[in-house]
Amino acid sequence: MPPTIGIVGGGQLARMLLPAAARLALPVRVLADPEDAAAAFTAGLVLGRADAAGLEALGAVCDILTVEHEQVDRDALAALEQRGHRVRPSAATLTIANDKVRQREKLAGLGISVAPWAVVAGPDEVEAFAADHGWPVVCKRPSGGYDGRGVWEVADAEGLAALADVTGPVLVEPKLAIEAELAVLVARRPGGETVVYPPVHTRQEGGMCREAVLPAAIPAALAEEACGLGEQVAKAIGAVGILAVELFVVDGALLLNELAARPHNTGHPTIEGSITSQFENHLRAVADLPLGSTQSRGVAAMVNVVGDGGDPRDRLADALAFGDVAVHLYGKAPRAGRKLGHVTAVGDEAETALARARAAAQALMGAAG
Amino acid sequence: MPPTIGIVGGGQLARMLLPAAARLALPVRVLADPEDAAAAFTAGLVLGRADAAGLEALGAVCDILTVEHEQVDRDALAALEQRGHRVRPSAATLTIANDKVRQREKLAGLGISVAPWAVVAGPDEVEAFAADHGWPVVCKRPSGGYDGRGVWEVADAEGLAALADVTGPVLVEPKLAIEAELAVLVARRPGGETVVYPPVHTRQEGGMCREAVLPAAIPAALAEEACGLGEQVAKAIGAVGILAVELFVVDGALLLNELAARPHNTGHPTIEGSITSQFENHLRAVADLPLGSTQSRGVAAMVNVVGDGGDPRDRLADALAFGDVAVHLYGKAPRAGRKLGHVTAVGDEAETALARARAAAQALMGAAG
Repeated sequence: MPPTIGIVGGGQLARMLLPAAARLALPVRVLADPEDAAAAFTAGLVLGRADAAGLEALGAVCDILTVEHEQVDRDALAALEQRGHRVRPSAATLTIANDKVRQREKLAGLGISVAPWAVVAGPDEVEAFAADHGWPVVCKRPSGGYDGRGVWEVADAEGLAALADVTGPVLVEPKLAIEAELAVLVARRPGGETVVYPPVHTRQEGGMCREAVLPAAIPAALAEEACGLGEQVAKAIGAVGILAVELFVVDGALLLNELAARPHNTGHPTIEGSITSQFENHLRAVADLPLGSTQSRGVAAMVNVVGDGGDPRDRLADALAFGDVAVHLYGKAPRAGRKLGHVTAVGDEAETALARARAAAQALMGAAG
Repeated sequence: MPPTIGIVGGGQLARMLLPAAARLALPVRVLADPEDAAAAFTAGLVLGRADAAGLEALGAVCDILTVEHEQVDRDALAALEQRGHRVRPSAATLTIANDKVRQREKLAGLGISVAPWAVVAGPDEVEAFAADHGWPVVCKRPSGGYDGRGVWEVADAEGLAALADVTGPVLVEPKLAIEAELAVLVARRPGGETVVYPPVHTRQEGGMCREAVLPAAIPAALAEEACGLGEQVAKAIGAVGILAVELFVVDGALLLNELAARPHNTGHPTIEGSITSQFENHLRAVADLPLGSTQSRGVAAMVNVVGDGGDPRDRLADALAFGDVAVHLYGKAPRAGRKLGHVTAVGDEAETALARARAAAQALMGAAG
């Protein structure tokens, strides 16, 4: 583990040191004069879970509520809304965005192309779906899954045993011949002002995002169509803040895969690669402030740092030896298969940027990357 | 004042939202699960002054101490050092860097060009200096001054009345015909590894930095000489972390003006304009980690937001309407003449970048900018 750094002074220079320290998971303590601490923006943690009690405690000290993950008690959020709290995105938007079945229903109503799908109650109905659409199929829990969890690929009727322990309805789709996976990030203000980032090309592994390149090297017409879809969906579900729209390219055409109504892993390249990051635009949208330019500054290639059992913080020096990458560590307890950080490199072309980011991420992942 | 935003979730997305919130001085509260809060890097404030008691308290919870301002009890810092604390930069470096007279003595010993100077005890000795070097002269307090405070320009013998209340020794120099003001930022590790940023061209007003452009548009030979001087001084005074070296161009030649052994206002354009910011390289140096690339990403123009009595936080929307600038607000209580934030624009050429940054900074400053 890296040493704890004490910073004498809590002014704006300390304030600007803190994000750099956070990026590298360097523990810091700031000696701040209580009368005048510009760095004191940091003292804003409310400890609790995203349940009724936690949301109530947060609502008591905030004017506007937003989310950074989906595991939120939406009833409690809706109750806060009804009592006049500004919840952005709204509980209604989250109800759609956090449920893959509701997403499909909404998107079908908009005439947007999605993969063939059905909601099934058990193995027999999966088999019936496969009889119509062919094996293999992909089964997904409607909500609560992430990074490949809650998703099962079933090769044939024998493979249905994998679903034995799954309770509740399941979304089933054919396994598609995916040519590329894209993500479009939209930022939208309460009044409807919208900006959209160029599509990101992502590489997934076992349902987990491993790499993302911004902007995707795809034909301009396809990029334009993807961005248009993103804006259409954001408007249709009343999104406020960042909406991430994941798309498949199948047979050269776009299929909408799924939505996330929050800053998204595929948007991490915007931190160094865009004039305004997805994080800043999320806050600007949620605070109903003018949105920032989504223009790219070069090609940004991001590689996730996924746990292998070791701690990437102990390998920081090896990664920083690649001087021209941005290393982000989340300071999370290391576990195999867990996202613990990411590395972004910006350059003139995707190949070289990706190679640099991979090398530094590899250094952080030890042998497992 | 902007509304307080509550973020449900304390994971890495919240962690990356916080610097964006800090940049815009948007108050945030994070609802974090106590068992797993990646955003909890924020809980690191030790409240106190940079005196013996405060430094003791900080030293008790840190492995390495560093500084973000000069008003530090150096004896207390030296005492911590003697008891085995790692203080970076060291008390010895700070003793030189925080005193303009000690700086001159050290630089003279290195054979580095500085303006003619003398330490004087009263108005008569200023007049004697002016008899040799001509009027007007500039008088400076050896330490404790900043942003034009502790500096007096004296036009002639009558003007000496302005020094009536000044006690203690004063540094006096002739008023120079300055063609340009430059700053060179050096990052140096304990073992001596050093990186240097290209020179920054600064514009000062009344002794306060108002604008900075990175990289300065100066002949390559002059830039190389400036960077070489920065590295030479950093080594000579044993700097660790960022050392800012301010230079004058007079008659086409470099004169060293003064030093600051910490991240520096003139380095703010590195946040958006460089592969690695001065803040990250300060921390990397202080933590003895490999340093990051100082290469520029376009031309970065920075304009300070100086208080006019109003609060720039109330004018945030006007500034953000310029979508392609980075707005930084420090969340400090607004006072006329106080640095409350800065705006940076990055582009292909200095003129247009500077125009954009000025326009957005002007929006934040109201009529006073």
